[in-house]
Amino acid sequence: MKTMAAESMRVVRPGGTIGILGGGQLGRMLAMAAARLGLKCAIYSPEDGSSAFQVSDWHLVAAYEDHAALADFARRVDVITYEFENVPADTAALLARLRAVRPSPLALGVIQDRVAEKTFVRKAGIGTAPFVAVDNEAALADAPAVTGLPAVLKTARFGYDGKGQRMVRTARELVPAWEALHRAPCILEGFVAFRRELSLVAARGIDGRVACYDLVENRHENHILRTTLAPARASARTRGEARRIAETLLAAFDYVGVMGVELFETEAGGLLVNEIAPRVHNSGHWTIDACTVSQFEQHMRAVAGWPLGDPVRHSDAVMTNLLGDEIERWQELAAQPSTAVHHYGKGDARAGRKMGHVTRLYPLGLRPAD
Amino acid sequence: MKTMAAESMRVVRPGGTIGILGGGQLGRMLAMAAARLGLKCAIYSPEDGSSAFQVSDWHLVAAYEDHAALADFARRVDVITYEFENVPADTAALLARLRAVRPSPLALGVIQDRVAEKTFVRKAGIGTAPFVAVDNEAALADAPAVTGLPAVLKTARFGYDGKGQRMVRTARELVPAWEALHRAPCILEGFVAFRRELSLVAARGIDGRVACYDLVENRHENHILRTTLAPARASARTRGEARRIAETLLAAFDYVGVMGVELFETEAGGLLVNEIAPRVHNSGHWTIDACTVSQFEQHMRAVAGWPLGDPVRHSDAVMTNLLGDEIERWQELAAQPSTAVHHYGKGDARAGRKMGHVTRLYPLGLRPAD
Repeated sequence: MKTMAAESMRVVRPGGTIGILGGGQLGRMLAMAAARLGLKCAIYSPEDGSSAFQVSDWHLVAAYEDHAALADFARRVDVITYEFENVPADTAALLARLRAVRPSPLALGVIQDRVAEKTFVRKAGIGTAPFVAVDNEAALADAPAVTGLPAVLKTARFGYDGKGQRMVRTARELVPAWEALHRAPCILEGFVAFRRELSLVAARGIDGRVACYDLVENRHENHILRTTLAPARASARTRGEARRIAETLLAAFDYVGVMGVELFETEAGGLLVNEIAPRVHNSGHWTIDACTVSQFEQHMRAVAGWPLGDPVRHSDAVMTNLLGDEIERWQELAAQPSTAVHHYGKGDARAGRKMGHVTRLYPLGLRPAD
Repeated sequence: MKTMAAESMRVVRPGGTIGILGGGQLGRMLAMAAARLGLKCAIYSPEDGSSAFQVSDWHLVAAYEDHAALADFARRVDVITYEFENVPADTAALLARLRAVRPSPLALGVIQDRVAEKTFVRKAGIGTAPFVAVDNEAALADAPAVTGLPAVLKTARFGYDGKGQRMVRTARELVPAWEALHRAPCILEGFVAFRRELSLVAARGIDGRVACYDLVENRHENHILRTTLAPARASARTRGEARRIAETLLAAFDYVGVMGVELFETEAGGLLVNEIAPRVHNSGHWTIDACTVSQFEQHMRAVAGWPLGDPVRHSDAVMTNLLGDEIERWQELAAQPSTAVHHYGKGDARAGRKMGHVTRLYPLGLRPAD
């Protein structure tokens, strides 16, 4: 791996502008958090009417491949970040020549490729499920010897919420699965017998300091996050191990900003890294209502070169995503006790689309079991 | 008093737009709270570059006397509210003919005149300091017989943060004080021997339901709020009395929205109303960080016709205003434990100007005494 380019130590003072690539709910919540700190936000998005536009100082609608628009955007902001990991490498590289991009394009480049990501994690001494890179038929045929079967074939790049994945139960299903994924470069991942899915959201500042939120437990439905329970009921040993994993990865990437680390807790009680998100993470949305400084503000602080905030949790929380037409329950949910409703201001409530979330708070230690 | 006009029962759904008169920090924090609910905001302000513009969907820069601009604004939004009580009566009346204005112009009209306000409070059976309306020299000369001396001569309208006030120690100071206030219509208010200043922020929905935040204690310096301690250390009897006062006033005004009620706790332990604010109130800023639903979100819920949120407090809090160049401490404050920094994004840090605030959270019951 190449040595990371030294990040600029630039600090964005109140009144300065943070440029955000992407105008979805994460960009929107980042912009709202920046506003608490007196920082302005500008949104770059290819989609007209992006919901983050409603709460940002200005925006620019252009393609991620539009180099003139990117250069214009970079010159008008003080620092650049992004709300999603699929920023094209060329886009990130172009921007980084003009302005500090945080987290760095190098971290982004590793994380947006599942093979590079898992290789990086292993080199840092952290466990993952068994995996093999697949970019030809011979590699595909040999892969189950490492991963076992059943396994999951995933495109190495641009997958999310279960998209770009095929289950492979027998050797005969290998080729059809790869065909279905258009013979794109893939990774075959072995199944791990895990007890539950956990995650940890952590941040690293430009001074190298790290702040970790509490370890949480996640429940998925149809590959989409349904519920986050904060905190996870976990031993001090498990919590410490999760924290060490996050600290190790943040330092290894010379990372600046918030990172989400998805973990499997194995039947034996160990932790394996499932995925890294180089951004604020859905499993950290509970921090808006249950922490003094949310993951969104924490990311804006890091990106702006401010001191990180205290990640202390003042309440227990259960966060539930509102998918598709579940958002129509806003009025009923808004009336419930100790409940914060978050509506992302998106127009089209397609099935499965993340339209909002709701966080129910409980006094410390009093979160229900389920 | 005239019968209040029936308020429209209009509900603003997510995606709808709330028009806010005024673009200062209160308008800014209202817009940020509305965004959580998927509501858009439009700001009407005579000042170019108002800090609320940075976080709102669109804005209109025009004078409050510009009837064409007001009508245009009203037609483009779904409901109208305001961040300050000195909206001209003509402006409010014009807007109310086109759109629901919440709280109603009738409540606004009473509250923006100190004589009408205190007369209204008394008629509702609630105590105030002794006062007399002063609009001629004879009334001025007779006033101390009711109020005693020393007393404070205040302009009946358009005062804030101690502006438009003169202390009157002896009868000989009466005329010079009135001259200094340009012989404007005034109120002479007697001094009350009070133990401390308290306040209660409460809201009333379009369905008539009321939600009260906890009673808090306020410390002023140079007539400007310095610190709010939440909750106030107060007996159940005092807390109940404060709540009854707020409920009585909200019902008497057929009010929709958040109201701030400033109170004196007398040496004898009773409560007197000092002032009413027909809007979100500086002494409610702690609710952003210490409650599930902040006063800003509560106001937006009420104004949009949504159910009010649960006003439960999950933490104790101490809120301190950052005045003038105190805002330069942002970096040091941002690094403190359990501390939320709020920077209003204003450019010019004039002495005494409210530039931001900082809220320190404590576990329930563990707020320090001072």
